[in-house]
Amino acid sequence: MENLIDGKAIASRIHAETSATVSELAAKSSLKPGLVFVRVGEDPASRAYVGMKEKMASEIGIDSRTIVLDEKTTQDELLGIIADLNSDTAVHGILVQAPLPSHIDERVIFSAVDPGKDVDGFHPVNVGKLMLGDTSGFRPCTPAGVHELLIRSGVETSGAEVVVLGRGNIVGKPMAAILMQKAAHANATVTVVHSRSRNVAESCRRADILIAAMGSAHFVKADMVKPGAVVIDVGVNRIDDPSAKRGYRLVGDVDFENIQPLAGMITPNPGGVGPMTIAMLMHNTALAASRAIA
Amino acid sequence: MENLIDGKAIASRIHAETSATVSELAAKSSLKPGLVFVRVGEDPASRAYVGMKEKMASEIGIDSRTIVLDEKTTQDELLGIIADLNSDTAVHGILVQAPLPSHIDERVIFSAVDPGKDVDGFHPVNVGKLMLGDTSGFRPCTPAGVHELLIRSGVETSGAEVVVLGRGNIVGKPMAAILMQKAAHANATVTVVHSRSRNVAESCRRADILIAAMGSAHFVKADMVKPGAVVIDVGVNRIDDPSAKRGYRLVGDVDFENIQPLAGMITPNPGGVGPMTIAMLMHNTALAASRAIA
Repeated sequence: MENLIDGKAIASRIHAETSATVSELAAKSSLKPGLVFVRVGEDPASRAYVGMKEKMASEIGIDSRTIVLDEKTTQDELLGIIADLNSDTAVHGILVQAPLPSHIDERVIFSAVDPGKDVDGFHPVNVGKLMLGDTSGFRPCTPAGVHELLIRSGVETSGAEVVVLGRGNIVGKPMAAILMQKAAHANATVTVVHSRSRNVAESCRRADILIAAMGSAHFVKADMVKPGAVVIDVGVNRIDDPSAKRGYRLVGDVDFENIQPLAGMITPNPGGVGPMTIAMLMHNTALAASRAIA
Repeated sequence: MENLIDGKAIASRIHAETSATVSELAAKSSLKPGLVFVRVGEDPASRAYVGMKEKMASEIGIDSRTIVLDEKTTQDELLGIIADLNSDTAVHGILVQAPLPSHIDERVIFSAVDPGKDVDGFHPVNVGKLMLGDTSGFRPCTPAGVHELLIRSGVETSGAEVVVLGRGNIVGKPMAAILMQKAAHANATVTVVHSRSRNVAESCRRADILIAAMGSAHFVKADMVKPGAVVIDVGVNRIDDPSAKRGYRLVGDVDFENIQPLAGMITPNPGGVGPMTIAMLMHNTALAASRAIA
């Protein structure tokens, strides 16, 4: 399987780099980056995600803690907590774990986080900077992680036809923004394909780099992939599986088994994009701390 | 020439609507929208643009004035003026006319304008909101104007293949963001093609809607257009013309003469996108004033 993009290995290298940055910060200014997770309610997936992120932070030397709030927390109470974290100089990164309960407007919450502490990259200022080619902001972790996978796997993006499947705010749209920029490791011809697109298979077959972020189990079939294309699978979908202990298993947006033989390079899933999201979160947190002392 | 998209006529209708909004504001709250132009130096094109915009503002009932600053104005002086305008409650819209002298960083200036008064739509917060599908911001005037041209000409964008030629911050990128949204009058499959793209002609030939904003005189030739496609020409390029009094004439990015016969619909240039930019500026200013009293 020589065409596999090993997300775990690349994520470890990024963690090592972040760890080195954290050590430099400690040496230079006795500063330890501080990251606070805010979790509302007891969604099991959110608990698991935050747990993994906390563990990794501690391994890297980032001070992290999680504020767990009751499911019934009001939007105003949450805004108050964010305001306190914004003004706390020991806190360099704030991550409010989505999804939030339906009585809380995520847009209001994400916009309330100080853009300089918005290590998730969801604040409009950071989205705008990304779009404008202004590198002083924070990039959302998953598309930034895909970008690092491409760069560190030696994939040429300049002039490449990229098809991004999906136009969500967390992956699809920022992914397109990153790769269309006039910049090194970008300069791609990007097409964003989504639920309203016609000729989806035909568009995908044109792609030199196909990034699947629809959230639809095994949506991308072998006949939608040009032989030799680079295929990145961002999807995490639950499908029923009575043979599994939990009654389901997680699969990607890409029919890996049938596409791996014809792809130029491909991410496994799990073990591809997933570890990169956490790696970029740690990177963003160290960056936020570095900028705080600059 | 029944396939012409008459930008002047559509812009007049928008001006009439804006004028009605301005009258309502006056009736409801004795409020007159205030728009301030800031112009640095004596660039003849900037003088002309600001002059046209001021004239239109006055016709519509918007209070406008222009602050003309010496070419040698420092960035800090300009920032001071913007801060004053930000805090002036009679000012609802602020437009700093580009280009600025090279010793002033446009990015710093555009980011200093209060996002609620940023009727040009260049502040990162407004760019980010546009990208995120949050309609509480301001959209940049030229791509918003193209969008209105499409809507008011009955062009179906949902599922359409759109090719945007050019990836500038003023037109190309926001144009792509507008048309890829999950929203009415959007939902297009958007490809952004630029100077590093390969197969440019082939990409263009796929377009149901081709939007040319490269800034390259007559770049789009007839063999790059699918018969029946809608062709929008955003370009304004100066080419030498000894027979003209000024020694040059302005031409678009589209070889209109040869494309008009085969296009489904096409904008003339001048008389297509140009008038729409001013119309959307006036619209944004009235909107800013409406929001200020809301």
